[in-house]
Amino acid sequence: MRAAVVRGDRIVVTEVEDPAPGPGQVLVRTLACGICGSDLHAAQDLAGFAAHMARVGAPGGLDPRRQVVFGHEFSAELVGYGPDTARSLPLGTMVCAVPLVLGPEGPENVGYSQRFPGGFGELMVLQEAGLLAVPEGRQAEQAALTEPLAVGEHAVVRAAPGQDDVCLVVGCGPVGLAVIAALKARGHGPMVAADFSPARRALAERLGADVVVDPAAGSPYTRWGELGVPATIIERGANELFGVASRNAVIFECVGVPGMLREIVEGAPPRARIVVVGVCMSEDAFEPFPAVVKELDVRFSIGYTQEEFAATLLRDAPGGLVTRAVGLDGVAEAFETLRSPGEHVKIMVKP
Amino acid sequence: MRAAVVRGDRIVVTEVEDPAPGPGQVLVRTLACGICGSDLHAAQDLAGFAAHMARVGAPGGLDPRRQVVFGHEFSAELVGYGPDTARSLPLGTMVCAVPLVLGPEGPENVGYSQRFPGGFGELMVLQEAGLLAVPEGRQAEQAALTEPLAVGEHAVVRAAPGQDDVCLVVGCGPVGLAVIAALKARGHGPMVAADFSPARRALAERLGADVVVDPAAGSPYTRWGELGVPATIIERGANELFGVASRNAVIFECVGVPGMLREIVEGAPPRARIVVVGVCMSEDAFEPFPAVVKELDVRFSIGYTQEEFAATLLRDAPGGLVTRAVGLDGVAEAFETLRSPGEHVKIMVKP
Repeated sequence: MRAAVVRGDRIVVTEVEDPAPGPGQVLVRTLACGICGSDLHAAQDLAGFAAHMARVGAPGGLDPRRQVVFGHEFSAELVGYGPDTARSLPLGTMVCAVPLVLGPEGPENVGYSQRFPGGFGELMVLQEAGLLAVPEGRQAEQAALTEPLAVGEHAVVRAAPGQDDVCLVVGCGPVGLAVIAALKARGHGPMVAADFSPARRALAERLGADVVVDPAAGSPYTRWGELGVPATIIERGANELFGVASRNAVIFECVGVPGMLREIVEGAPPRARIVVVGVCMSEDAFEPFPAVVKELDVRFSIGYTQEEFAATLLRDAPGGLVTRAVGLDGVAEAFETLRSPGEHVKIMVKP
Repeated sequence: MRAAVVRGDRIVVTEVEDPAPGPGQVLVRTLACGICGSDLHAAQDLAGFAAHMARVGAPGGLDPRRQVVFGHEFSAELVGYGPDTARSLPLGTMVCAVPLVLGPEGPENVGYSQRFPGGFGELMVLQEAGLLAVPEGRQAEQAALTEPLAVGEHAVVRAAPGQDDVCLVVGCGPVGLAVIAALKARGHGPMVAADFSPARRALAERLGADVVVDPAAGSPYTRWGELGVPATIIERGANELFGVASRNAVIFECVGVPGMLREIVEGAPPRARIVVVGVCMSEDAFEPFPAVVKELDVRFSIGYTQEEFAATLLRDAPGGLVTRAVGLDGVAEAFETLRSPGEHVKIMVKP
């Protein structure tokens, strides 16, 4: 099959061996597959990424000296069954799945595995038990948004915001927008979103943010008072003293670069809950003192459960997230484009 | 009155003006007052400490150019009532209190206030509404342990460990020992404690730790498996897949120096809850990636509520925590001694 492969620090389109479904597995033809921020990280420093994965004992292994087919945000057409399969879905069904396949040594990440190529190739092998049929009438590109949207769903489950909590989403790239969509699906408000890009702010509003902030024009961390959240320890203490209920803040870090945690710890109101959804791949520094004095909670979030993934698939994906579609030949350039995303949110690859 | 005052970078014993109780306040004579780790930090860099306090909007203000009487872990004898007081306790009663007094601009921290001298002076002013009578038969030094023990109580409330969670206490100074005491008071187990000092490890065992670890001899982070906590993502995932219950880990950071968070994030098992009770006053760096992949929770903890303080006072303080008592003339030397604590846990000042 044809695939866009990551080979060292390059992305090239080439012929690779067709994957073959083993027992309990199926063969699918990729319909659409989004490019994820993690793909950008991993392509830029495959050896570093592989070392990170190995260090934390993440499933599967990645040999940076060998090529790999990325792509884990996919929709696909079911085209064949391997041995020992129940075959409950007819061939031709459009499917989504959590990108995990059982390899000989345990579960492996489709799209970061050298045994199971990802969605930037024409064919994939998936686990039959994990297949989810895409609801009728859904476009393949929209269905492929299930995975990144499930990341937002999981982050909101991790955050467990109370009904009256004020949510601030810092960064409105694909991750931040997924968080906004998941909050909106719960009818949550008020919700503030911050991003430097006007296009992303507009999309944040369209997806359900009540207030959008341009951090270049004004700090998103100065508005707690007007949103009913005590901004200082004294204010919160006084509320407790006089039996006045205090609103809490939940802050989603959806940028994933060094310095964000420092900024949020500094700007958070007392007792805020911070959910870190952005994946910062390098060392980070912050000052613990304000975090201690304000008794902040920091919850790191990644991925989703099978249930959260399935629930996300049942909801219509919001429009406007896919800002471009490319073929395999456009993958390398799309990676470059996304390094300074400008107006782009999600670029879909259609092999 | 006589007091040991912090003046610039020195501690000197001198005469200071007697504090006078205002409306709703009482005058007490200090019986015993412990030296806290925060006191060491603050005495070493009063200007930096004052700036930290001001920056986070903590109650009261501290002018580093003026002298201040430290001491917020006290027991005291009630010796006089100010105007507008209910006078429900007889003079002579031994009392403890949360070290907060209402000043003209709001609550101030007794012991870090230039209006309300702390327990390293002979007399203090306290708020009548916050007074708690010490149970009959309790020694003054033991009663003065209420404040630091309440810090452990609060940290355990913040941690909210489940019955089957494995607790690891990193650092067995006064804070770590207070956490162990609070866990023990709940009958919690198993509980692992780590400290480089043999004396502190012995005390940790005496207070209720089931396993003690010398980090110089072996990492405390390699024992999850034998304690029934899945140590890797694969193990935890397999448990979920096969419906096997997984024990969780709760890790208390009770050291408060840069690098501890990095070490704990690295060594924590997936889904661990980390409660940061040690107060690190300088910038700190760590790698977010393992925290993200393992979905760690980090909860910063400081202080306690009035209810937690009162509950702690009702319990007998464990023996062995007070390792020395000094008069006011011994305060400066005691601060020096505690900078490399060796076998010391808590030094009590008896003005």
